[in-house]
Amino acid sequence: MSLKLGSIVGTLGGRLLGSPDLLMTGLAPLQSAHSHQISFLSQPRYRSQLPASQAGCVIVGVDMEDEVKDRLSAIITDDPYLYFARLTRLWKSEHRQTAGPRIHPSAVIDSTAVIASDAVVGPLCVIERGAQLGAGTVLKSRVSIGEDCIVGARCLLHSGVVIGADGFGFAPHQGQWEKIEQLGAVRIGDDVEIGANTCIDRGALEDTVIEDGVKLDNLIQIGHNVHVGRHTAMAGCVGVAGSARIGAHCTVGGGAVVLGHLTVADHVHISAASVVTRSILKPGQYTGMFPLDSNANWEKNAATLKQLSRLRDRIKSLESDNQNNKEN
Amino acid sequence: MSLKLGSIVGTLGGRLLGSPDLLMTGLAPLQSAHSHQISFLSQPRYRSQLPASQAGCVIVGVDMEDEVKDRLSAIITDDPYLYFARLTRLWKSEHRQTAGPRIHPSAVIDSTAVIASDAVVGPLCVIERGAQLGAGTVLKSRVSIGEDCIVGARCLLHSGVVIGADGFGFAPHQGQWEKIEQLGAVRIGDDVEIGANTCIDRGALEDTVIEDGVKLDNLIQIGHNVHVGRHTAMAGCVGVAGSARIGAHCTVGGGAVVLGHLTVADHVHISAASVVTRSILKPGQYTGMFPLDSNANWEKNAATLKQLSRLRDRIKSLESDNQNNKEN
Amino acid sequence: MSLKLGSIVGTLGGRLLGSPDLLMTGLAPLQSAHSHQISFLSQPRYRSQLPASQAGCVIVGVDMEDEVKDRLSAIITDDPYLYFARLTRLWKSEHRQTAGPRIHPSAVIDSTAVIASDAVVGPLCVIERGAQLGAGTVLKSRVSIGEDCIVGARCLLHSGVVIGADGFGFAPHQGQWEKIEQLGAVRIGDDVEIGANTCIDRGALEDTVIEDGVKLDNLIQIGHNVHVGRHTAMAGCVGVAGSARIGAHCTVGGGAVVLGHLTVADHVHISAASVVTRSILKPGQYTGMFPLDSNANWEKNAATLKQLSRLRDRIKSLESDNQNNKEN
Repeated sequence: MSLKLGSIVGTLGGRLLGSPDLLMTGLAPLQSAHSHQISFLSQPRYRSQLPASQAGCVIVGVDMEDEVKDRLSAIITDDPYLYFARLTRLWKSEHRQTAGPRIHPSAVIDSTAVIASDAVVGPLCVIERGAQLGAGTVLKSRVSIGEDCIVGARCLLHSGVVIGADGFGFAPHQGQWEKIEQLGAVRIGDDVEIGANTCIDRGALEDTVIEDGVKLDNLIQIGHNVHVGRHTAMAGCVGVAGSARIGAHCTVGGGAVVLGHLTVADHVHISAASVVTRSILKPGQYTGMFPLDSNANWEKNAATLKQLSRLRDRIKSLESDNQNNKEN
Repeated sequence: MSLKLGSIVGTLGGRLLGSPDLLMTGLAPLQSAHSHQISFLSQPRYRSQLPASQAGCVIVGVDMEDEVKDRLSAIITDDPYLYFARLTRLWKSEHRQTAGPRIHPSAVIDSTAVIASDAVVGPLCVIERGAQLGAGTVLKSRVSIGEDCIVGARCLLHSGVVIGADGFGFAPHQGQWEKIEQLGAVRIGDDVEIGANTCIDRGALEDTVIEDGVKLDNLIQIGHNVHVGRHTAMAGCVGVAGSARIGAHCTVGGGAVVLGHLTVADHVHISAASVVTRSILKPGQYTGMFPLDSNANWEKNAATLKQLSRLRDRIKSLESDNQNNKEN
Repeated sequence: MSLKLGSIVGTLGGRLLGSPDLLMTGLAPLQSAHSHQISFLSQPRYRSQLPASQAGCVIVGVDMEDEVKDRLSAIITDDPYLYFARLTRLWKSEHRQTAGPRIHPSAVIDSTAVIASDAVVGPLCVIERGAQLGAGTVLKSRVSIGEDCIVGARCLLHSGVVIGADGFGFAPHQGQWEKIEQLGAVRIGDDVEIGANTCIDRGALEDTVIEDGVKLDNLIQIGHNVHVGRHTAMAGCVGVAGSARIGAHCTVGGGAVVLGHLTVADHVHISAASVVTRSILKPGQYTGMFPLDSNANWEKNAATLKQLSRLRDRIKSLESDNQNNKEN
């Protein structure tokens, strides 16, 4: 498994410093790369690792040309991180081994499901009645696609994903819960990636919608009727409650929760572990998370926090005392 | 797929305004329903959507009769949301297509498992030794029921559910962990619904118990020895730690965490993303969650929060200064 | 299913008070044990349950000998909880029923995977190309082990676990996300237990590493390139973001989140639902979690919290007023 530098820049572009015949046997981080491995530097904070790196070739930005001119080789490009991303894809495509069967015989697929001729269905997947998979879409092992759910083209669904389980809908009646049948489905656009064991529920009446280019990490819960705008990305363990409407080009940090029936505008960034309790109508970064502290300090502060509104009243009262004193 | 209004009120009751021969082809929300669809209005905040709604029929409460009298048709009922729930069930039962096999041949079922004659076991489920499924219970695809676990009647378990994995029990010994075998099982009552990829662990010595009518959303973790009282509902991503005892008729919001060995009384409502750190003995709503803010504001407030107990001391000191001033 | 007390102390040690011929039919907690069951007392707070317990035999520490001398029987040992752990294992091994096939025929295993001769692969597992399972390792049902991932010896992976899904890596480009192929794998040491539906992603370039003796509960997300040190334990629903490095002998409470690229020292204990937002270099217990309160109190305090830094400024201003007053 190896690629010549000349072949890499031939395919991906960039300006090569050094011999095109140098053979690279792998990709590695700056700190651990050895002389037959290619690495990259995209963030200034890792700049100090460059001089000591044993990497045979380093992908760097135009501003770094001076700092790599004495190295064995380097690739100069406008966006080293993007170049690196493309190199991983080139690497993988060059070194792909014989694939298994396109539709694994262990998958259970309803006869009415419509699967594009080049879609891949991994072992032990379940595709229910009327479901559809677009061209080039890949289901890894043990993915379930529920009745009438649609997955677009070039999607990648990792193991254990569940698309189209019932949304969580019940009407209270005399202290018990009466089920609301979930009559909608899930519609997923093109170029969507969905992480392991993530769940996207079917809509109650209309469809739950995931637009083109959305990227969802592992163990995410998307409730019924949710709408996620295109190119939005969510990190692991996020929960989005029913009927929330999340804009395009948003990011949601790991473990964050978005409550139901809220609207989040385009280009909103939610920090990890934050809870969105109201609609957000302006782009920007939003956070709500108790800062970590030593347990001893936390205990003191948390105890005081429960009296915070009273503390405010005491400040007010002090201010009014002082005001009276001044006036007298 | 369609139903006449006369047939709907014939089955579900309610008072019909308009022709019983009107044919409805689906259910839809007020805003998007067209003239052959039936909709409902249960919450006052959606009242303003009624006049513009194109819905062919609207289910409303008795107090709304005046506002629908000029519409093509309407159904008047005491509880429109409950009526809607029942209509979704009627709709689904009327339009159910040929079902697959009752016990899917791809399911792996131990010969000692006891499965009620009308229970349904979906594709690629695993039912281990001595497990039991009650009458009318449905397992969707890829559900695992562990050894000796019991699921009652009329339950619905969605894809990826795991019942009866080992509880998380280890004894510390010389810096390592020695496993405590989990000798209990899981007992689930009747009319329980369990969401996709949710896990309920087996008890250490006795059983983990989920009582009748409990509804659990997706990606919930229920630890060993937990007891969840009847008709309690939990939203997605909730975690309940071992040996917690949760009452009946409770609700737990999405992403909330209940710590171990705690007791939560009946009729307690935990807000989303809140952490239950102590037993709750009185009914009511409980919350603990950092309010969301712009990241810039959050940073200022979070930094101050770490000095909160010192701020309290400073207020105290100011108060005592003022007291001294007054006395002098 | 039963064991004589003599046989128990013969195998596990400890000093028996009472007849070695007493037959025990099970293990049970102090409160519910009956006269043919064996129980244990390891925590002082349960001491008050001892006198009323009907247990036929109680495992207690050396300091408790006086309090059990009038009981039917007891086992005296240095560490009753550890003794209990070992008894559960003895019990399970004595009462194990005929096992199923070692490699379940429904499992889908690539021909290049290397599986130790006494490893157990449960129903409907998927083991991809080049993956390895060490001696004595057990996969319960529906576990996926991705390409080239390595699981050590004597590991136990519960149902629904996904090892080696792609890490969540994308390069932003013109408002869209370009995939970074994840070229690393997952390396799991010996004696690791992994809970149901937990996910461990493969590394981007190098491997994600879980060291010996780590215990992970259910529904945990471990991002790419993470390193978890030996004998660290994490409770359910924890999320560890990419490239975090967690030390040895740590514990992480349920629902906690560790952000990416952070370092956590050995012997650090993170409380449940806390968010680790910075590296932790000293052992100790760390917490950050909004304390639970009645919703009404919470609303008042949370509203004030959003003005906390202004409150601090007002206190400062009051202090400076008082200082001026004193000086005048």
